[in-house]
Amino acid sequence: MSDMMTMHPISGVYLGTCAAKIKKNGNPDLVIMELAQGSVTVASFTQNAFCAAPVTVAKQHLTESTPRALVINSGNANAGTGEQGMFDAQQTCVWVAAELGCQPCEVLPFSTGVIGENLPMEKLQQGIPEALANLSVMGWSEACAGIMTTDLVPKSVSREVMIDGHAVMITGISKGSGMIHPNMATMLGFVATDAKITQACLQQCLTDAVNVSFNRITVDGDTSTNDACTLTATQQADMSQINSLDSKAYQDFSAAIHGVMTELAHMIIRDGEGATKFVTVSVEGGENSEACLKVAYAVALSPLVKTALFASDPNWGRILAAVGRAGLKDLDINAIKLYLGDVCIVENGGRSASYTEEAGQAVMDQTDITITVQLNRGSVNEVIWTTDFSYDYVKINAEYRS
Amino acid sequence: MSDMMTMHPISGVYLGTCAAKIKKNGNPDLVIMELAQGSVTVASFTQNAFCAAPVTVAKQHLTESTPRALVINSGNANAGTGEQGMFDAQQTCVWVAAELGCQPCEVLPFSTGVIGENLPMEKLQQGIPEALANLSVMGWSEACAGIMTTDLVPKSVSREVMIDGHAVMITGISKGSGMIHPNMATMLGFVATDAKITQACLQQCLTDAVNVSFNRITVDGDTSTNDACTLTATQQADMSQINSLDSKAYQDFSAAIHGVMTELAHMIIRDGEGATKFVTVSVEGGENSEACLKVAYAVALSPLVKTALFASDPNWGRILAAVGRAGLKDLDINAIKLYLGDVCIVENGGRSASYTEEAGQAVMDQTDITITVQLNRGSVNEVIWTTDFSYDYVKINAEYRS
Repeated sequence: MSDMMTMHPISGVYLGTCAAKIKKNGNPDLVIMELAQGSVTVASFTQNAFCAAPVTVAKQHLTESTPRALVINSGNANAGTGEQGMFDAQQTCVWVAAELGCQPCEVLPFSTGVIGENLPMEKLQQGIPEALANLSVMGWSEACAGIMTTDLVPKSVSREVMIDGHAVMITGISKGSGMIHPNMATMLGFVATDAKITQACLQQCLTDAVNVSFNRITVDGDTSTNDACTLTATQQADMSQINSLDSKAYQDFSAAIHGVMTELAHMIIRDGEGATKFVTVSVEGGENSEACLKVAYAVALSPLVKTALFASDPNWGRILAAVGRAGLKDLDINAIKLYLGDVCIVENGGRSASYTEEAGQAVMDQTDITITVQLNRGSVNEVIWTTDFSYDYVKINAEYRS
Repeated sequence: MSDMMTMHPISGVYLGTCAAKIKKNGNPDLVIMELAQGSVTVASFTQNAFCAAPVTVAKQHLTESTPRALVINSGNANAGTGEQGMFDAQQTCVWVAAELGCQPCEVLPFSTGVIGENLPMEKLQQGIPEALANLSVMGWSEACAGIMTTDLVPKSVSREVMIDGHAVMITGISKGSGMIHPNMATMLGFVATDAKITQACLQQCLTDAVNVSFNRITVDGDTSTNDACTLTATQQADMSQINSLDSKAYQDFSAAIHGVMTELAHMIIRDGEGATKFVTVSVEGGENSEACLKVAYAVALSPLVKTALFASDPNWGRILAAVGRAGLKDLDINAIKLYLGDVCIVENGGRSASYTEEAGQAVMDQTDITITVQLNRGSVNEVIWTTDFSYDYVKINAEYRS
């Protein structure tokens, strides 16, 4: 999956990467993705009100034109930079557009890295032609490295799927340890496919897929100022255009995109720095999605649950307390069942009669742990993924700037 | 403040404490507070749906009668214990009532300690007469020690105040590191006064005081299953009864109770295990209280802000990001100002032009730190208090049961 040898090129997507010296360590930090004429691109952005300048500019450009290029720098988030930040994000687009012969509004800018420092514009200006000089459909793995900040491993997923009897390629890259390092991280995802699909269908597909993948992972509850995910369809596959949400072709395509984005999202969680566990929190039998997610996040974000997970301690009282404070109205605690893996830990308002510390310990000793909360209030289920809280989490986040 | 020599006895409040061996270390763990006939007691409880059996029983008993005694055990929370837990909490009241010659419903039970284990009823039964054997108006400091779990220091406040020209005594004790150790902690507060005051006025006073003291402190966002606070007025002071919320006597009394409870709450934060900082988060200029608190808790509970506080790192980008994701509608980021102490760190949507890293560092190097967020959307202000996240937080919570 993260094996670069399996990354399929996408017809119509050309990637160029260079080290523009925005990062102090000299690693690649500037990526330009050129998109062939006719490509359709949709995007999803952070909900943080203090969104970074490139997010504001990218949103604006999406309303004005059809993107012909994405320009992504790592090492500097261009966030909390006020008017100068807006000017710098615009200027970056101007330079890329001039080189590619398109309009500045056809370029979407993305930045990730330190908050509150101005973009080093001279370095960017010098880097843009250098990145464009190695544009190639084979450039995915270099691009994947170029968007990394504190990531320990590059994150990519590539698949060939059959849609309506035709081969369709999907390749995506992501970066960021969730919101674990907003100073040097940010969740970014860029997915491209050669599928023929209308913009309306593509937008629906992205919205649905992000909702159950990138929007269902949490490390520490902090939302970065720069989070963004794009989905580009170059329309170059040999197939009929997908133009109906009810078609089997759309269902198959959508399922494939869901799969790719979920895998990219899981890679972010597994690479969460300091993370020693991959935790699935499943809430079943809620009256609606909101109720399920309230409970799921209360459990997933509880520092007490997270430190117990780090210690492999089947401390079910902390899970029970988190469910109890999630804020569901008229919660019938006697109807609730809690499971660690397959082991029932709580029922009838207290510890399950069948529970043994040994059975709970056996689940907690594993790296991948599922916590299931059965609410028995309705028929809606939700799943989110998270990590534990370790010494390294504190170390990384306390010592980063020192 | 926590000097035991300054604890004023309260006429009509008799305290008895013993070591009933509920705690493994043999420290005092059972406290009985007998209240003279005519005393009025009001209480405030946890909002956690998985509230402990003693909370359910105490709430019920308050509706049925006027409390004549409180019985508090530490070392076992009697939470997550289902039907057996309810029976045990009731039985404890029966035993205390039999000794004191009152009705079981005139006794309120409180428990704090490990979740999910049944109360050791034999030890409780033996401890009750032992605790009652040393009932005394001078028993406050022993009681203060008897309710501790993982607290490092006992927490008490005692004041003599003049109300309407008469001396009134107020003495209170508290325990718990906020919600930092729901397994062995829980916030408990017991405040008594000899004031003459109606139940309606006393209830309003408690509600208002808890709202700006115990309900404004947060360590990790987790709400214990056992949190409770009581306020007893024995009516034995030489004064006219306070019976109007508009009277100066009520205002003076209420201010004194607010002061005592705020001080007790601050002691809990300062004793939060692993805590190295005492952090005040002040949100000014909100359209309403809810909006201010949303922002305040987003900042106070952000693990990224808390680890930066631990590192004394003026990492203002994390504070900015937390404000941005707090969920306020139509947030105008250009109108917001952020301060570390007196140092303006953010204005006009980015880092303040006047900000220097040295000035920010000077504030962060202190133990007591105030973060101020000026929203400039309205005229409502709110203040909450919290701590940092340290290695010791993870250590204490990860290793507790091992």
